[in-house]
Amino acid sequence: MSLLTVGTVAFDAIETPFGKTDKIVGGAATYICYAASYFLDQSNIISVVGNDFPEDRLNHMKGAGVNLDGLQIKEDEKTFFWSGKYHYDMNTRDTLDTQLNVLETFDPVVPESYQNCEYLMLGNLAPAVQMSVIKQLKNRPKLVVMDTMNFWMDIALDELKATLKEVDVLTINDEEARQLSGEHSLVKAADVIRQMGPKYLIIKKGEHGALLFYNEKTFFAPALPLEEVKDPTGAGDTFAGGFIGYLASTDDISFENMKRAIIVGSALASYTCEEFGTAKIERLSKDMINDRIREFVSLVDFDANI
Amino acid sequence: MSLLTVGTVAFDAIETPFGKTDKIVGGAATYICYAASYFLDQSNIISVVGNDFPEDRLNHMKGAGVNLDGLQIKEDEKTFFWSGKYHYDMNTRDTLDTQLNVLETFDPVVPESYQNCEYLMLGNLAPAVQMSVIKQLKNRPKLVVMDTMNFWMDIALDELKATLKEVDVLTINDEEARQLSGEHSLVKAADVIRQMGPKYLIIKKGEHGALLFYNEKTFFAPALPLEEVKDPTGAGDTFAGGFIGYLASTDDISFENMKRAIIVGSALASYTCEEFGTAKIERLSKDMINDRIREFVSLVDFDANI
Repeated sequence: MSLLTVGTVAFDAIETPFGKTDKIVGGAATYICYAASYFLDQSNIISVVGNDFPEDRLNHMKGAGVNLDGLQIKEDEKTFFWSGKYHYDMNTRDTLDTQLNVLETFDPVVPESYQNCEYLMLGNLAPAVQMSVIKQLKNRPKLVVMDTMNFWMDIALDELKATLKEVDVLTINDEEARQLSGEHSLVKAADVIRQMGPKYLIIKKGEHGALLFYNEKTFFAPALPLEEVKDPTGAGDTFAGGFIGYLASTDDISFENMKRAIIVGSALASYTCEEFGTAKIERLSKDMINDRIREFVSLVDFDANI
Repeated sequence: MSLLTVGTVAFDAIETPFGKTDKIVGGAATYICYAASYFLDQSNIISVVGNDFPEDRLNHMKGAGVNLDGLQIKEDEKTFFWSGKYHYDMNTRDTLDTQLNVLETFDPVVPESYQNCEYLMLGNLAPAVQMSVIKQLKNRPKLVVMDTMNFWMDIALDELKATLKEVDVLTINDEEARQLSGEHSLVKAADVIRQMGPKYLIIKKGEHGALLFYNEKTFFAPALPLEEVKDPTGAGDTFAGGFIGYLASTDDISFENMKRAIIVGSALASYTCEEFGTAKIERLSKDMINDRIREFVSLVDFDANI
């Protein structure tokens, strides 16, 4: 089924204990669309870039089946830029620079050709921008997945809560779940957050895996222990892209299939961490993905006859 | 098969964000023996206490099938005492007070009746004390499991490395694995540590679960997301006790059975966290244990047909 992704297409400059990049292509929607491309021949994006964004990179996304009708190119402006430095633990980072540029005035417009998208992925953006896209859709999608971050909890909590009411699945990390709910226990946090709107909550714990909460059910997917983590930037977005891409391709939003989608998302995200930026996620093969899914299966496999 | 546990029987005073205790019974061997008691009618302990240790608590351990022939009672000395305060995250803690007391001169003696024990659990203690027990056994046990901590890496690294050469399974936490190996990646850390002696390495990640490394294989067991964690003291020891107790009761040290033993240990450890001290682990029922094992099975269960 058709997928619509809303999110940033951006430049990043990243420093980790294992290396450093100049300005490279990043952005939530970029990672999401590449990840989803392994499951869908075609998907749709709503985003914005400036005149400094390289055309060959846009063509590369087109080559991955991404319809750019909803991508605004602001001729006299610059692309959103983020620069950050990861600590030794690779789980925490400092933002060194944020230049909103085109994002400051971003007003998303849903092209007519996107109107019947059944799967909507709201990448991390101002909640009001996410809401604007929901409102422009004439038919409610079959599944709305939303990513967000602590920044919006700090400065736009009311808009965030309003948008949360409209979504089916929320993905946030463990610290954000604690902040949003005011509960330390993730079990209690999940209860509180699911009362805010999303029926499904995915709590991402980075190298410690991910939890899916739905009604009284909980599912846990580990992260693959990696020999080398070069750059975790985009891992959460890759996870989300693999998750919704798999769901859209199978067109099955049962809890059982969501569990499989989380394994798929985790497998793809593990690849993203192995290189800086989108280097790895833009050039995977089906075999590589299947190999890694098999590693996940084997990682948690045991004979339950205890 | 018969189990021998070496470790502390102690007093703890614990403060967490959710409560505070006076002096209560703790100690690695205490938790280990209670956890193992659900799988073995009888087990053996080597430890030391002072004249201040309550007899009714020793009788309670006897009632759980623990043979106290190897427990030294020092008439003019006091029991080991530890006091600590957990931070809000419940994963880190400050030691407020440590009174070694009887531990200062502890010289373990293996009673003749323990000589044929086939499963040996070396609870966290000075590596030289752990080694002394290994050396006193006339026949090498079928399986030697060792727990240790960063403290011994700081002050007794040579003795620790010598003892590591004699053990089959090492259990440590993630930060300790990084410290001992000098590697940040847990995959690389596991390789380095397994070259030091133990064929099997279990890395305990607290609320994030546990990893088992053996040859090229890796197994991951999650921790159960708990509604309420009151006190994580003894969770690692409970895990170890459930792990080796299950292995000894099934007398099967294959990798497949070790995976099951990790699930069992994790299930028991989750109970320990729900109350202060040994309150919960000393009074479980078989049904409670089986219920929790089922929760673990369901937590990671998915249809791998992706």
